Amino acid sequence: MAIITLLSDFGLKDSYVAEMKGVILSISPDTKIIDITHKIEEFDIEMGMFVLASAARYFPDGTIHVAVVDPGVGGKRRPILIKAKRNYYIGPDNGVLTLAAKNEGIENVYCISKVAISNQKISATFHGRDIFAYTAALVAERRKISSIGERIDDYLMPEFKKVKIIDNEIICEIIHIDGFGNLITNIFSTDLYNLKLNFGSNITLQFEKNDYSIKFYRTYSDAHPRELFALIGSHNYLEIAENYGSAKNRINAKKGDKLKITFYD
Amino acid sequence: MAIITLLSDFGLKDSYVAEMKGVILSISPDTKIIDITHKIEEFDIEMGMFVLASAARYFPDGTIHVAVVDPGVGGKRRPILIKAKRNYYIGPDNGVLTLAAKNEGIENVYCISKVAISNQKISATFHGRDIFAYTAALVAERRKISSIGERIDDYLMPEFKKVKIIDNEIICEIIHIDGFGNLITNIFSTDLYNLKLNFGSNITLQFEKNDYSIKFYRTYSDAHPRELFALIGSHNYLEIAENYGSAKNRINAKKGDKLKITFYD
Amino acid sequence: MAIITLLSDFGLKDSYVAEMKGVILSISPDTKIIDITHKIEEFDIEMGMFVLASAARYFPDGTIHVAVVDPGVGGKRRPILIKAKRNYYIGPDNGVLTLAAKNEGIENVYCISKVAISNQKISATFHGRDIFAYTAALVAERRKISSIGERIDDYLMPEFKKVKIIDNEIICEIIHIDGFGNLITNIFSTDLYNLKLNFGSNITLQFEKNDYSIKFYRTYSDAHPRELFALIGSHNYLEIAENYGSAKNRINAKKGDKLKITFYD
Repeated sequence: MAIITLLSDFGLKDSYVAEMKGVILSISPDTKIIDITHKIEEFDIEMGMFVLASAARYFPDGTIHVAVVDPGVGGKRRPILIKAKRNYYIGPDNGVLTLAAKNEGIENVYCISKVAISNQKISATFHGRDIFAYTAALVAERRKISSIGERIDDYLMPEFKKVKIIDNEIICEIIHIDGFGNLITNIFSTDLYNLKLNFGSNITLQFEKNDYSIKFYRTYSDAHPRELFALIGSHNYLEIAENYGSAKNRINAKKGDKLKITFYD
Repeated sequence: MAIITLLSDFGLKDSYVAEMKGVILSISPDTKIIDITHKIEEFDIEMGMFVLASAARYFPDGTIHVAVVDPGVGGKRRPILIKAKRNYYIGPDNGVLTLAAKNEGIENVYCISKVAISNQKISATFHGRDIFAYTAALVAERRKISSIGERIDDYLMPEFKKVKIIDNEIICEIIHIDGFGNLITNIFSTDLYNLKLNFGSNITLQFEKNDYSIKFYRTYSDAHPRELFALIGSHNYLEIAENYGSAKNRINAKKGDKLKITFYD
Repeated sequence: MAIITLLSDFGLKDSYVAEMKGVILSISPDTKIIDITHKIEEFDIEMGMFVLASAARYFPDGTIHVAVVDPGVGGKRRPILIKAKRNYYIGPDNGVLTLAAKNEGIENVYCISKVAISNQKISATFHGRDIFAYTAALVAERRKISSIGERIDDYLMPEFKKVKIIDNEIICEIIHIDGFGNLITNIFSTDLYNLKLNFGSNITLQFEKNDYSIKFYRTYSDAHPRELFALIGSHNYLEIAENYGSAKNRINAKKGDKLKITFYD
């Protein structure tokens, strides 16, 4: 029994997500469909990329991930299928799939060029339903990839924003703000290995407008209520949080904000 | 293995949807339950009707669709089951089921009059759980319809708002606004067959307050960013959209707004 | 085939819920996963307790309910598994599980102390994924509870707010406000047995700021549009509602508001 996950910016009010599920179940009735989220900000490919990569690593081998954040639908961007080491990724060739696939290792990338022949009803406006969900169901039914598309090498690989490390200072960026208002930076846990960082040690955050002196803790409950602090979050990135509160509101931060973090023993 | 879909105006914060699922799985544990949406505007039967009809056509034969937009719960409106050509529709007799069922062809309509006898625990306030979900599970278990209800002929068939076509002018109405702010009119694609309409041709929209000169395109990416335009959307209705934006906010439109559209070569 | 339900305050934008589902399906691929809700107000243990208890009673025997409203994650609060008469409850030992489990009868409570040994990857910040979902999947796979944890007796049993009844007056409290704006009190249907209460009889509500004279009805459609009234809701609690409207907005009430209700023949 295959698993297909769905991620999109469609929201939950309309019939779009259900239409995709109907298409999948019409072709592959035993497949398990799991929603990752449909509340990606409209057209926010980076957010889709981050959330997909965060979720995908926890799914079993052979999972088919479909991600539809697709402002260019109907235009020149290609529909692609990535065969990675463990899983399949299906969606537009705009970067939304690439971080998750790269994390586990990309084996081959295919342009979904042959589905149009078998699925007569492709609309110009809803490839999520007519190409991506349809293709995912074919993969779930173990259809040969050679009948779905052709290998390509010039797929989009976005530059991932890297941190700049100088001694005990790291210049980084807010790459995601979660529903609790936690600010997730692009500092990965391994970026901190060379720093002598202990739980309880001091950190300063220098945003464009304000500075904050906070502590580095192991987990939320190490902080006092309403204390602003930093920790390695469950995504394995350095995260700025307020215990029982919202770091987003406290700092008035938004995605893309740059900051310098200085770490002390 | 049966498929039951659920649509309601219950929202996602409360236990109501889960209670329905618990009832279904208690009777029919192998059934697959798919949410269409639970974010229909409160008591908005028309929106429920539109979203159900949009989604239902993509589900496989034999799907059991349950729709609960039910301001009259506990009153005189009857609970009904529609056996249509391909699928079953279960919900209140207030029109929410009728468009989807009519699209595929209604075979018979039943008043769910006999379920009360087998399900002792019917509340006066939550027929979604106690009658509709319960009945859907019985249908999924292939219980005879004669044990569920009696045929009726006087079910509600709402008048669907029709467009008025005079030469190259169509008087129509906004019947749905999706999460992207696209304005979906009641002009069906076939209403345009007699017009010589080419991609790139000109259109004028006359709303009560403002007029707009726009173009008719094949898909979103044919428009410039922020360009207002018209297209045949994935529902097969004419739709007014803003590329990378919200036509709803641009025009300040709401559901039910009437407008005259003039089409040029 | 086991059923696992999930309830949390994680919201639907992030990858957190999907990560839990991925963990479950990696261990127990045939399990059915049902969302109760992920829109519990942040850290609102009482709301989680109420919604879980409302939903759980409708699920079949043997269901495994996971509830993660967990402000103390990573701290001293213990992760627990409750074996109740019909179902399993897994989550933090902060009260969120206790009402549902108590309703059906608690058999044994276990501290989940042995999962850390088998699941190496426990983070300090996301026990929902690394302990609770993981443990639920083990239970779904019929792993022996003795391999999961040790019995404890000092688990948290919150005091449930009781009503005070003096003749025909009841002092009570708003314990939940649903998505329709219905105000659900802590007056259970059985609290009203000694009162001669007929449908159509009069009631007065005395809030701190305002009084309301309303009627007691059987169901929503017994009230006129926009009429404020009381009924026994589908949770079996006395509920204050406005037909086709929001009692919450009408009264400007919030959760925790106290009031005195007087019942007349």
